[in-house]
Amino acid sequence: MEKGQLLYEGKAKRLYATDKPEILWVEYKDSATAFNGEKKAEIAGKGLLNNKITSLLFEKLQKAGIASHFVQQLSDREQLVQQVSIIPIEVVVRNIVAGSMAKRLGIAEGTVLARPIVEFYLKNDELGDPIITEDHIELLELATSAEVEQLREKAVAINQVLIGFFHEIGVDLIDFKIEFGRDSNGAILLADEISPDTCRLWDAKTKQKLDKDVFRRDLGNLTDAYELILTRLGGQHS
Amino acid sequence: MEKGQLLYEGKAKRLYATDKPEILWVEYKDSATAFNGEKKAEIAGKGLLNNKITSLLFEKLQKAGIASHFVQQLSDREQLVQQVSIIPIEVVVRNIVAGSMAKRLGIAEGTVLARPIVEFYLKNDELGDPIITEDHIELLELATSAEVEQLREKAVAINQVLIGFFHEIGVDLIDFKIEFGRDSNGAILLADEISPDTCRLWDAKTKQKLDKDVFRRDLGNLTDAYELILTRLGGQHS
Ligand SMILES: Nc1ncnc2c1ncn2[C@@H]1O[C@H](COP(=O)(O)OP(=O)(O)O)[C@@H](O)[C@H]1O
Ligand SMILES: Nc1ncnc2c1ncn2[C@@H]1O[C@H](COP(=O)(O)OP(=O)(O)O)[C@@H](O)[C@H]1O
Ligand SMILES: [Mg+2]
Ligand SMILES: [Mg+2]
Repeated sequence: MEKGQLLYEGKAKRLYATDKPEILWVEYKDSATAFNGEKKAEIAGKGLLNNKITSLLFEKLQKAGIASHFVQQLSDREQLVQQVSIIPIEVVVRNIVAGSMAKRLGIAEGTVLARPIVEFYLKNDELGDPIITEDHIELLELATSAEVEQLREKAVAINQVLIGFFHEIGVDLIDFKIEFGRDSNGAILLADEISPDTCRLWDAKTKQKLDKDVFRRDLGNLTDAYELILTRLGGQHS
Repeated sequence: MEKGQLLYEGKAKRLYATDKPEILWVEYKDSATAFNGEKKAEIAGKGLLNNKITSLLFEKLQKAGIASHFVQQLSDREQLVQQVSIIPIEVVVRNIVAGSMAKRLGIAEGTVLARPIVEFYLKNDELGDPIITEDHIELLELATSAEVEQLREKAVAINQVLIGFFHEIGVDLIDFKIEFGRDSNGAILLADEISPDTCRLWDAKTKQKLDKDVFRRDLGNLTDAYELILTRLGGQHS
């Protein structure tokens, strides 16, 4: 496989073409951003950790029957994925109240939800990723209502599987953000990444935060936290 | 009927007890507020206009089969209503994109919606009335899912009737906010007010704004606009 031209550079990853159609070469960057890009830093080793954790989780998810764009890990910072047309909706699943939900609705952080809640946010940095309803999704023609139903079902299924993975390693999955895309047949595939950048992960015993909140709230060393997740998941931090 | 003690003073109205249980005496104030209370003014005559317009609209709605808390207009600034337990949800119906929806989602003001959209906002000034989904409503125990279905259906029905009233007087109903409450039997009743404070109303020909946006955006004389709505609806501005 050959790495082709740079197609897109986002906040956390670079996407390159390859010599194979519909296969993208993804490079994880060391950039950390929060609060819609207002807070920024370069954190050596973050890209490697997120690439390894995402690769590991997508592999485990595929074994558990969750189809995704993931093809294979290539190197410390690189992986191959299937190209999809990203649906510009950030799908958030919450098991425990934290972050923006706690703030927006005035609910105490840590409140356990009776059942997981799925929320949709418009993936649009300029607008600050506003929360949207199914009516807005239809209006903005982001997805059909049958697709929204699929997003919701897939998100709930992924949550169930991920809760299990993290439970095994003594970590509570508080919430996470995922993105989906359409493949060339229009089928909806889990895409993007699942990492401590996109999940809230609390140590089950100590409730220590092992995710991007360490960066958002200046709670200590970010890569120490991410490394702990990687090694507990059975990954090697070369 | 006798006016009893002051039960509650809000931004736009005062509620008093009466000698009859479950009947409230409402007094409309001249206060104008916008942007969650950040912008404030006293506008002589506004209370009278909103009381008359609301009374007129609730009467017309009742004739059109829409049950509400409205009992009768008492005077220029006063009316009697049935006491309900307000559901703390601001139900917004939109026919044309404007205001916060245009801003939040980056859609041009004036965009005509293919069908009306119903949105729910948490009625909570401290939190800035955040938009909420049915899951949040359930989580916060604001209403059951059967009640949410009723709110949606009633809101759409009220919209259809109001569009007709305003169409007859050469006014486009862009969007509006309503509140509902539960009566002593738990039945859901339309409550609060429907006035140029709670609707966006544009002259159908000139597209001139005839609602609180005149105050929000400093577009001219507010009471002139409200008076125009009242007199076109057939009301007398004593
Ligand atoms: N399989 C895929 N095919 C196409 N685009 C993808 C795929 N997976 C993720 N993307 C997109 O790659 C871009 C780069 O990722 P990232 O750096 O996280 O961007 P962002 O700044 O939007 O968060 C994002 O727009 C993401 O939606
Ligand atoms: N029929 C009713 N029974 C009880 N409360 C009502 C009724 N109709 C309206 N209300 C409430 O009256 C209060 C006063 O109105 P308003 O001044 O507009 O208050 P706010 O500042 O909350 O907008 C509001 O909390 C409103 O929900
Ligand atoms: Mg991203
Ligand atoms: Mg009010």
